[in-house]
Amino acid sequence: MSLQLEQEGLYEQFERIIATEDKLQIRDFLNDQKISDVADLINEYPDFEAQIVANMAIHRASSVFKILDLSAQKRIIRELPSFKTAELLNELPADDRTDFLEELPKEVLRDLIKLIDPDERKVTLSLLGYPEDSVGRLMTPDYVYVYAHNTVEEVFSTIRKFAKSSETVDVIYIIDEATGELVDDIRIRDVILAAPDKRISDLLDGRVIALHATDDQEHASQVFKMNNRVALPVTDNNNILLGIVTIDDMLWVANEEYSEDIQKIGGTEALDEPYLEISFFRLIKKRVGWLIVLFLSEMLTATAMAYFADEIQKAVVLSIFVPLIMSSGGNSGSQASTLIIQAMAMGEIHLQDWWRVMRREIFSGLWLGGILGVIGFLRICIWHFLMHHGVIQDLYGEQWMLIGFTVGLSLVGVVLWGTLSGSMLPMILKKLGADPAVSSAPFVATLVDVTGLIIYFSVAYMFLRGILL
Amino acid sequence: MSLQLEQEGLYEQFERIIATEDKLQIRDFLNDQKISDVADLINEYPDFEAQIVANMAIHRASSVFKILDLSAQKRIIRELPSFKTAELLNELPADDRTDFLEELPKEVLRDLIKLIDPDERKVTLSLLGYPEDSVGRLMTPDYVYVYAHNTVEEVFSTIRKFAKSSETVDVIYIIDEATGELVDDIRIRDVILAAPDKRISDLLDGRVIALHATDDQEHASQVFKMNNRVALPVTDNNNILLGIVTIDDMLWVANEEYSEDIQKIGGTEALDEPYLEISFFRLIKKRVGWLIVLFLSEMLTATAMAYFADEIQKAVVLSIFVPLIMSSGGNSGSQASTLIIQAMAMGEIHLQDWWRVMRREIFSGLWLGGILGVIGFLRICIWHFLMHHGVIQDLYGEQWMLIGFTVGLSLVGVVLWGTLSGSMLPMILKKLGADPAVSSAPFVATLVDVTGLIIYFSVAYMFLRGILL
Repeated sequence: MSLQLEQEGLYEQFERIIATEDKLQIRDFLNDQKISDVADLINEYPDFEAQIVANMAIHRASSVFKILDLSAQKRIIRELPSFKTAELLNELPADDRTDFLEELPKEVLRDLIKLIDPDERKVTLSLLGYPEDSVGRLMTPDYVYVYAHNTVEEVFSTIRKFAKSSETVDVIYIIDEATGELVDDIRIRDVILAAPDKRISDLLDGRVIALHATDDQEHASQVFKMNNRVALPVTDNNNILLGIVTIDDMLWVANEEYSEDIQKIGGTEALDEPYLEISFFRLIKKRVGWLIVLFLSEMLTATAMAYFADEIQKAVVLSIFVPLIMSSGGNSGSQASTLIIQAMAMGEIHLQDWWRVMRREIFSGLWLGGILGVIGFLRICIWHFLMHHGVIQDLYGEQWMLIGFTVGLSLVGVVLWGTLSGSMLPMILKKLGADPAVSSAPFVATLVDVTGLIIYFSVAYMFLRGILL
Repeated sequence: MSLQLEQEGLYEQFERIIATEDKLQIRDFLNDQKISDVADLINEYPDFEAQIVANMAIHRASSVFKILDLSAQKRIIRELPSFKTAELLNELPADDRTDFLEELPKEVLRDLIKLIDPDERKVTLSLLGYPEDSVGRLMTPDYVYVYAHNTVEEVFSTIRKFAKSSETVDVIYIIDEATGELVDDIRIRDVILAAPDKRISDLLDGRVIALHATDDQEHASQVFKMNNRVALPVTDNNNILLGIVTIDDMLWVANEEYSEDIQKIGGTEALDEPYLEISFFRLIKKRVGWLIVLFLSEMLTATAMAYFADEIQKAVVLSIFVPLIMSSGGNSGSQASTLIIQAMAMGEIHLQDWWRVMRREIFSGLWLGGILGVIGFLRICIWHFLMHHGVIQDLYGEQWMLIGFTVGLSLVGVVLWGTLSGSMLPMILKKLGADPAVSSAPFVATLVDVTGLIIYFSVAYMFLRGILL
C-alpha cells in the first residue's frame, strides 16, 4: 500500500514536471530517481519514453535502457536523434549492447553498428560471433587485470586508473605477463586486507574457476550457484582471458530458462517476447504448430474408437467412462513428466538414473492407479444403489459390478501407463539430444489417450465378453 | 569430454589418497580442490562424506556444506562428532545456517542450537523468526558499516578490522550515528577511487534501495534484477539496518521458484525435496491429492455422457469424436494457462490487463479453433471418400457432411472455451490471492473437458436433430 502511494507520488511529480517543459528541471528530477523508478515511468508514459532517456545523464540513461523491454528499446532508438543513439550505445556495457543488437533486423543492425566507436565496435562484433545462449554473449571486456609480481599498492593504482570504465572491481584478474594466460583471480576484499607492499603472488590460492566462451549459459549459472563467486573469468582454448561474466546476468539467464521451459511444458514454442507485446499472428504461429501436431495424433483416438464402435453400440454404458479414463491417464502422465523435467533441469536426476526412476514410477503408478481405481469402483457401486432405488435412470443394468471392475482395473492400467510414459519420455528426449521440456503435458496426454482407450476396451472385452459384448 | 577426464582423474586421486588413511595427506588434497569438486566427491562417495567434511579446513568445509543437498547435510551432521558439528555450524554464514536448521525436526533443532556460540545463537534464532520465503531468512548480519563523517582512509581501516568475518565488502553501508538508521550504501569501487582524506558524506548519492525483512524473496529477486546491485540492505519499519542480502542467494531463490511452479503446473504439490531423495510415500502423498480432486471433477464427464446416452445409442458415430474434441480443448487450455502463468511470473502481465488478455485470447481461440475445425472437417471428408470406395467400414453414412460440420464447429467452440478459461483462471486465482501456478494444465483440462462435452453434444443436437437424433 505504501509502495503504491509512493509510486502515485512519483507519477504526479513527473506529470507536473514534464508539463513545465523545462529541460533542466526534467533532467534534475530524472537524475534524482532510482533506475527502476525511471523504468516504471517509461512503462507508464510511453509517449515520453524517448524524451525521458534523452534528458538523463548518459550513464544513467544506459542503466535504464538495459532493463527495458526489447520493444521499448526499439521504439526509443527509433525516436532518439542519432547523436543521442550513438552516445547511448557507446555507454551501454558491451554485453547488454550485444544483447540488444542481436534482436534487431540485419538492416537496422548495420546502421546502428556504424554509430559505435571503432574500439567498441570491434568488441561488439566479436561478441556477436558467439552462439546464442553461450557464455560469450554475456561477457564484458571491462575488467581489471594485474600481474603476479605487482604489489598491493600497484593494484590499487591500476584500479584507480582503469576502474572508471570497468563493470566490476570486486574481483581482480592476474595474467601471466609473458604468455597472456589467466593465472588466477582474487577478491578485492583480500587485496584490501593485505599490507600495501605485499606482492599479489603471495595472495593467490591457485584455485581459479574459469568458463569457456562457448559454454552454455545454463552451465555458467550452475557454476555460479555452486562456487559462491560474483564474477567468473571467460577464457578461450589457450587459457587467454577474453572477458568476465558477472553474477547479475545469471538472474536474467535463470528467468529466460524458466519462461522457455514453462512455455514448452504448456505446449507452445518459446515466445521469446512478452505475451502482450508479441504480434497477434506471431503468437498464433507459435501456438498453432503444436496444437496441429497434437490434433493429428489425437485423431488416432477417433480411429481407435471407430474400431470399438460395435462394442459401444452393444454397450453404450462403456462410452460413458471414456472421458474419465482418458483424463486420468493424461493427468498422471503430466504429473510424472513435469516432475522429471524439473528434476533433470535441477540436476537431481541424470540419464543413468533411468532405472531408479522407472522403478519408482512403476510403484507410484500402481499405487496412484489403485487409489483412483477403488474410488471409481465405489462411484459405480453408489450410482448403482441410487439407480436401483429409482433415484436416477438405470444405465448399468444387471452387470453393474462387472462394469465397476472394468473401470477400476482400467484405471490401474491407464494410470500406470501414464506415469511410466510421462517419466520416461523426458529422459528419452534428453538421450536423443532434444530438450526434455518438449515432452509437454499435452504431448504426454496425447500419447496416453490413444493407448488408454485400447487398455480400457481390452479390459472391457475381458470382463464382458459374452455378457454385454 | 576433457571435463569428464579431469573428473575421473579427481576420483582416482581421491581413492588413492583416502586409501592411505593419512589424515594430513587427505587434508592437503581436499584443501587443494575447488569447492564444487569436493561437493562432487561427497556425492560420489557417500561413505566418506563425513570424513571429507571433517578433514577440511573449517571455512572450506562450511563452503562445501552449504551447497550440499539437505539429505547429505543431515547425514553428515549425524555422523560428525559434536565438537566438529559445533565448529561447522558456527562457521556457516548465518543465512545458510538458518536455511539448514529450519528443515530439521524440532528435537534435532533444539540439540543443535545448543552447540552454537551465544552470539551466533541470537542471530540464528532471530532469523528463524521471519516467515519462510521472506527476505529475513536470507539475511546475513555480516556487513561493514561506517558513518557519513568517516574519511575514506577510516573506511579502509574499518574494513581491515572487521572484514574477516563479513560476507561481502563489495558494498559498504552508511549508518546515522545518532539514530542507527540506514543512510545510504556505497560500492567499494567508489571508495577505492576516492582520495584517502575525502569524507564519505561527499561520495553519497542518496539513492539507497532497501528491502524489508518481511518482503517476499521473489520480490527481492526482482529488485536485484532491475537495479544491478550485488547486495541490498534489509531494514525494519524504523529504517534500522538488520542485515544484508547478497545476489548469490537470488540464484537459489530463482531455482526454487522454478521448481515449485513447474511442479504445480504439472499438478503436484511442490515436493521441496529432490525427486530421488523424497521418501516413496511422501511422493505418493504429494501426488495423489490433486489426482483425486481431478478425478472427482472428471466424474462430471461421466454424468454428462450418461445424460447424452440416448443420443450416443442413436448415433454411435458421435462417441467416436469425443476423445478428439475433449483433448483439443484441454491442449489449447493448457497452452493458454501456462502462457499466462509465465507472463505473470515475469511481471509482463498484471491483473488490470485482464481485458487485453481476454480480447487476445478470444481472437486466438477463434483462430486456433478455426484452423483445427477445418482440419477436422477435412479429415471426415477424406474418411468419407475412403469409406465410399469401400476402403474402410462406413460409419458416417449419408450424414457425413453434417457430422463434419458438427465436429468442425464444436472444435471452434471447445478451443475458444479452452483458451478463454485457460487464460482467465490464473488471473482469477491471483485475484483471489492464490498462486496462479495452481491452475495447472490438468486442472484446466478437467474444467474444459466437461464443458467441452456439453458444447459438442449441443452442436450435434442442433445439426442432427430429426435426422440422426
